[in-house]
Amino acid sequence: SGLVLVKNPHLDLMEEDILYHLDLGTKTHNLPAMFGDIKFVCVGGSPNRMRAFAQLMRQELGLAGAGEDVADLCAGSDRYAMYRAGPVLSISHGMGIPSISIMLHELIKLLHHAKCRDVTIIRIGTSGGLGIEAGTVVITDTAVDSSFQPRFEQVVLDDVVVRSTELDKGLAEELLACSRDIPDFPTLIGHTMCTYDFYEGQGRLDGALCSFSSEKKLEYLRRAYDAGVRNIEMESTAFAALCRLCGLKGESCHFHLL
Amino acid sequence: SGLVLVKNPHLDLMEEDILYHLDLGTKTHNLPAMFGDIKFVCVGGSPNRMRAFAQLMRQELGLAGAGEDVADLCAGSDRYAMYRAGPVLSISHGMGIPSISIMLHELIKLLHHAKCRDVTIIRIGTSGGLGIEAGTVVITDTAVDSSFQPRFEQVVLDDVVVRSTELDKGLAEELLACSRDIPDFPTLIGHTMCTYDFYEGQGRLDGALCSFSSEKKLEYLRRAYDAGVRNIEMESTAFAALCRLCGLKGESCHFHLL
Repeated sequence: SGLVLVKNPHLDLMEEDILYHLDLGTKTHNLPAMFGDIKFVCVGGSPNRMRAFAQLMRQELGLAGAGEDVADLCAGSDRYAMYRAGPVLSISHGMGIPSISIMLHELIKLLHHAKCRDVTIIRIGTSGGLGIEAGTVVITDTAVDSSFQPRFEQVVLDDVVVRSTELDKGLAEELLACSRDIPDFPTLIGHTMCTYDFYEGQGRLDGALCSFSSEKKLEYLRRAYDAGVRNIEMESTAFAALCRLCGLKGESCHFHLL
Repeated sequence: SGLVLVKNPHLDLMEEDILYHLDLGTKTHNLPAMFGDIKFVCVGGSPNRMRAFAQLMRQELGLAGAGEDVADLCAGSDRYAMYRAGPVLSISHGMGIPSISIMLHELIKLLHHAKCRDVTIIRIGTSGGLGIEAGTVVITDTAVDSSFQPRFEQVVLDDVVVRSTELDKGLAEELLACSRDIPDFPTLIGHTMCTYDFYEGQGRLDGALCSFSSEKKLEYLRRAYDAGVRNIEMESTAFAALCRLCGLKGESCHFHLL
């Protein structure tokens, strides 16, 4: 049916669903009227970048209001920012798995309540590259954890649940085809590694703590490269797992910062 | 000596240290002049709340500029917000362990570069309470993980490093003594449980996914209460572990929202 799947038997029994961190709700807002025609959701860490992206989309799509300021649809909450450009929703998710997970739970419920169909979601974030040129865009085929495994281990109460992190291969190929029209951005498809920590977790030598040697770091990153990892960031495994489970066609594209 | 400890042999060899997510650096800013007199750092998830807290501190301390707007010292970055009120720094950290960890790494380096001494750091956040009245303030004696253990398991490259999450008991008692002057806020000392996920991780029945039964949830929360847990949030284990390791006197106080 193309509808977004909510896998929670309690939800339909609730009189009101408050999307706390988006400052939206089923009683306070007419979600089908506000969001029913959304077809694409683009998400990234920084609120300013997601506002700029919505403005760019308005221009590219030739929409009314292009060039003007865009309203934050979550203005009552400072946890996330949400902007819209025609059928495209642009939302910030902060940094790390816990932060993107809260946003995705509430976004998925939003799309469900709004009765959206055939929604494609794309994470457009920055990442650190591995053995690739700065400025390269990495389109993720599979998100992997710090052991290079295609899985998202999530603690549910005190059980560990393992979820698959494969992304939509057809969508990855479509995005790669689009990239051929933009010669300035070298683009490739590869595995994306997702870590819980930016400094020690990614082998950076400039954190407040550094409990490993430079040799250990190089050996680890070499193994990651050999396993197919081309970039490292902090949200992709949770993003892939949640999108898959809820029937969202999802992809993750990262711009490798210098 | 009361100085903040940086446990990274590489740091002193670096010509410049850029605190990326705070938009501050050792070459672009005179950190000792800007921050050398800081004695207290208060952190919380929401940028708006941390601005309001800095404004309140200016009033309470009778400082110049009380009642006026306060400048964001990280205005060039939209990852975190930072405000100052005399010797008190007020910083937002977003949601979840990865987000607070990035901020703490850069804050600890900031305090180190600024040669601050005898700094006390307090997390003032919201949380969900467990078997306590709404509006209660919980002062954390020990942060525990989802298995009720006083530890922070951190993945460093592909090793799991276990770090202690005990907080400063003397500071907890001091804060509890302060609370006796404020009759409106019931306050207690207890364990704080830290999870990676807000919905499934904390047993909420209103997420996009719910892969456990109500009975399983109740049984789990009962065990948590019996283990001494009085509230649940998403940053305390990383906060406790990093503060301990770097010689910051740290405490974590949470307001239990309804």
